Amino acid sequence: MSELFDFGQKILAKQNFSALLGAELTKFEPGEAELTLVIRDELKQQHGFAHGGVISYLADNSLGFVGGSVLTDVVTSEYKINYVRPAIGEKLIARASVLASGKRQAVCQSKIFVIDGNKEQLVAVAQGTLNKVD
Amino acid sequence: MSELFDFGQKILAKQNFSALLGAELTKFEPGEAELTLVIRDELKQQHGFAHGGVISYLADNSLGFVGGSVLTDVVTSEYKINYVRPAIGEKLIARASVLASGKRQAVCQSKIFVIDGNKEQLVAVAQGTLNKVD
Amino acid sequence: MSELFDFGQKILAKQNFSALLGAELTKFEPGEAELTLVIRDELKQQHGFAHGGVISYLADNSLGFVGGSVLTDVVTSEYKINYVRPAIGEKLIARASVLASGKRQAVCQSKIFVIDGNKEQLVAVAQGTLNKVD
Amino acid sequence: MSELFDFGQKILAKQNFSALLGAELTKFEPGEAELTLVIRDELKQQHGFAHGGVISYLADNSLGFVGGSVLTDVVTSEYKINYVRPAIGEKLIARASVLASGKRQAVCQSKIFVIDGNKEQLVAVAQGTLNKVD
Repeated sequence: MSELFDFGQKILAKQNFSALLGAELTKFEPGEAELTLVIRDELKQQHGFAHGGVISYLADNSLGFVGGSVLTDVVTSEYKINYVRPAIGEKLIARASVLASGKRQAVCQSKIFVIDGNKEQLVAVAQGTLNKVD
Repeated sequence: MSELFDFGQKILAKQNFSALLGAELTKFEPGEAELTLVIRDELKQQHGFAHGGVISYLADNSLGFVGGSVLTDVVTSEYKINYVRPAIGEKLIARASVLASGKRQAVCQSKIFVIDGNKEQLVAVAQGTLNKVD
Repeated sequence: MSELFDFGQKILAKQNFSALLGAELTKFEPGEAELTLVIRDELKQQHGFAHGGVISYLADNSLGFVGGSVLTDVVTSEYKINYVRPAIGEKLIARASVLASGKRQAVCQSKIFVIDGNKEQLVAVAQGTLNKVD
Repeated sequence: MSELFDFGQKILAKQNFSALLGAELTKFEPGEAELTLVIRDELKQQHGFAHGGVISYLADNSLGFVGGSVLTDVVTSEYKINYVRPAIGEKLIARASVLASGKRQAVCQSKIFVIDGNKEQLVAVAQGTLNKVD
């Protein structure tokens, strides 16, 4: 386990909301972050899919982590998310990467996938801005 | 209580994730929707503010409700959110309205405020697209 | 004519691209900016509507002006735009305002309208981030 | 020259605004579209960079083309764009691809690069929704 991954785990453990949802940091390297979440009934909406707010949480948090992997301490300034498919399955995985990064700002992308049996499908794509905190 | 508000309450009650977070529908009229959420410790991130994912949930869900108030059954196609201030306080209120609406699509806005004592401040602004479901 | 408006006019005059398109600054006050553009054939796309790129230009530039009205010298960091209706008519007007503003950043909105005879209709809505340049 | 590329050329030729700017379609395949534009003085802003509206035009139009490459006739519903670097150089290239595509909607990405001598650098990244027109 790398020092960065260890650092990421500690941050995630301090996020009560991430604990409430059950998110796990499954990858954390310079320029890459992955969060995994088991879809339990408490995370669903009225049609039985994972709630859009859960997908958004994964987008927001994976963007924050990947931005932090290159700029250390960041805040999410903004992001946009496109939902492309209902989230039906057992598990969600958000994979975030860096599109462009400067001294004070990183523009990052997160793709959120749902795992249903042995099928993995894209559920949403997000793009956003992370700003370094002094 | 209007029929629409009653309908909205029933939808919200069927969203397990909204129950987990403790969201309440505090206004629901044609073209306007308001969700209110008490900020408890479980909803916070590592700095003690309400987690961005909580704000995003409110944006996503209030946009869905306001879109539904004019188009009946909708899905959130996409939205963008700008965070403008850390969410420090007792309560969050998302107020969503319709910017433009056609037969099959509505473009809506949600402003999310934090209530801290008797002060109300803007925390985030979101803009998104809701598509009618047949 | 206010000093700010005079300043705005000078900036616009230095933008060759704005001259090519024929944009005029029709309002410029702290927190408000308006750009007006006559729709001539050169600005159209294949269906005879004003091209989306023209609408985008108005969004981008009116956001830059309104951000500059509160933060002096700014760069557009990002924005999103929703098109809500084809731009058919004689003239486009972009009206930009400030949603939230801090020391270094402003989050602004621009609504773009088309004037067709004596009818004015919303064509697009944009939301974006302007960052102060040192 | 493929039939699709020939079709794309004809569409671009009918866009007066694209002719005014001088855009060329340099690639057009199912799921990929590339527009190229020489940066002449008329396309600049007050600091001598290509105007944000020019970059936005390329984002908007390349998204429209790539959406059309998979869904035939489309309209741009919305997009967001992050500017990551001033556009200084001789030429701009927008490379658009499909992130997800269904029967009626495609979510696409466009990366806009500037060519300065033999250096190519990312200037902006856009993500948007294209809807099929019946």
